Amino acid sequence: MKRTAFFISDGTGITAETLGQSLLAQFENINFVKLTRPYIDTEEKARTMVQQINAAAESDGARPIIFDTIVNREIRAVLAHSNGFMIDIFSTFLSPLEQELSSDSSYSVGKSHSIGHNANYMERIEAVNFALDNDDGARTHYYDKADLILVGVSRCGKTPTCLYMALQYGIRAANYPLTEEDMERLQLPNALKKHKHKLFGLTIDPDRLTAIRNERKPNSRYASFAQCEFEVREVENLFRRENIAFLNSTHFSVEEISAKVLVERGVERRLK
Amino acid sequence: MKRTAFFISDGTGITAETLGQSLLAQFENINFVKLTRPYIDTEEKARTMVQQINAAAESDGARPIIFDTIVNREIRAVLAHSNGFMIDIFSTFLSPLEQELSSDSSYSVGKSHSIGHNANYMERIEAVNFALDNDDGARTHYYDKADLILVGVSRCGKTPTCLYMALQYGIRAANYPLTEEDMERLQLPNALKKHKHKLFGLTIDPDRLTAIRNERKPNSRYASFAQCEFEVREVENLFRRENIAFLNSTHFSVEEISAKVLVERGVERRLK
Repeated sequence: MKRTAFFISDGTGITAETLGQSLLAQFENINFVKLTRPYIDTEEKARTMVQQINAAAESDGARPIIFDTIVNREIRAVLAHSNGFMIDIFSTFLSPLEQELSSDSSYSVGKSHSIGHNANYMERIEAVNFALDNDDGARTHYYDKADLILVGVSRCGKTPTCLYMALQYGIRAANYPLTEEDMERLQLPNALKKHKHKLFGLTIDPDRLTAIRNERKPNSRYASFAQCEFEVREVENLFRRENIAFLNSTHFSVEEISAKVLVERGVERRLK
Repeated sequence: MKRTAFFISDGTGITAETLGQSLLAQFENINFVKLTRPYIDTEEKARTMVQQINAAAESDGARPIIFDTIVNREIRAVLAHSNGFMIDIFSTFLSPLEQELSSDSSYSVGKSHSIGHNANYMERIEAVNFALDNDDGARTHYYDKADLILVGVSRCGKTPTCLYMALQYGIRAANYPLTEEDMERLQLPNALKKHKHKLFGLTIDPDRLTAIRNERKPNSRYASFAQCEFEVREVENLFRRENIAFLNSTHFSVEEISAKVLVERGVERRLK
């Protein structure tokens, strides 16, 4: 069974998209075609949306599901005339919140109000720059400024996790690859020793690591199962010996790894 | 007036956090202390949460607002005994959705179901690698594989935008810095000419650019207002002459820039 879902917003669409994705994931038997439509901020654009919604309704033989976070009443009214099943996210929750907070929302007085990531812009850019400058052990003399330092074998997911934490939460995360050389020494590299309280280990199933490294350097020794298996085993032993908390990233998304690392290390989000 | 808000989840907390932030942003007069608490997945952890909620209630003199996406009934029941105002996101929407879709959700049958970013893991990592490998004009011979190519002066926000689009949407975005050399030639660099349909321009207010560059290279000619003003003017002229769509990034967040660029270029999200 196929159903179309639209995430519609007069802003970026991230709220509608995030909530919609979570809710639809609870219906495993339905095959959703998901379409995000941000910046629907005029009645004219809303009328074009109505045409798309009605076309999908006809082609699916069922009403599309509409998740919307549109603030403007007139624009919502246009959408409400479509042949879609509307889940009006703001309307649903703002009225009980207004009561609890004894305060009118910008929404109910008809004023759009963005989430205001702007105040955080410089903090975020700084965090991204920090992740890039301190990626892959490139520099180690700024580790005193790091919120945390991810360690693990090459290609176990350190870089995307650091970048995600920087962009999503403004966290300054460095990462350091544990190489064969470090393994043979069987101890932590000097650069990491004095920042042990900031370290968090990532590990990965050797099968998965082999697949990822083969994408990068096909048929190399680096990508061989034997090498991957050896490195992962040695690094996990190091983590245990040095009492470094670690996580196997194999079955987790970048969001999940990031959230788990922050919980484990007790690091609070910097973007508010 | 101060109120505490908790975003509580048995998963990453991203849905509760994203929706909660959006809703609270509509109340401009209230100063919220926002706390994300992911992986509250046992009754024991929920009881600890109840203590934190009750402590905040006492210290604020008002009930904290709780946004939760917990699937397990028993865990939700523990939280419901706290002195907080619960906004139970899944309960609110899943029942009308079940009716519309004539289907039980995993939620209502008590089975947790993650959003399943895993299927997209390789696609995302590839997109992040693509953004890193094709950052700052480092390579231009993979532009045929790019979904889009951001162009603009140094430090106008190209790199964070490319990384965000990669992580959030799996988009392969390269970026190319327009340098003084390109400006004096008054034409597009050759590497970009044949990919003109993929180009999107970013520009920025010279004041803001001066501030950002001064963080990086204080008191340099590169960071001087005169230089920033010259580069921005020349690049905007180039965009107009070459008919390249562009956006002034100054007053927008990375999310907003990304969403606008994708709308303008008509690029659909790759992660579903």
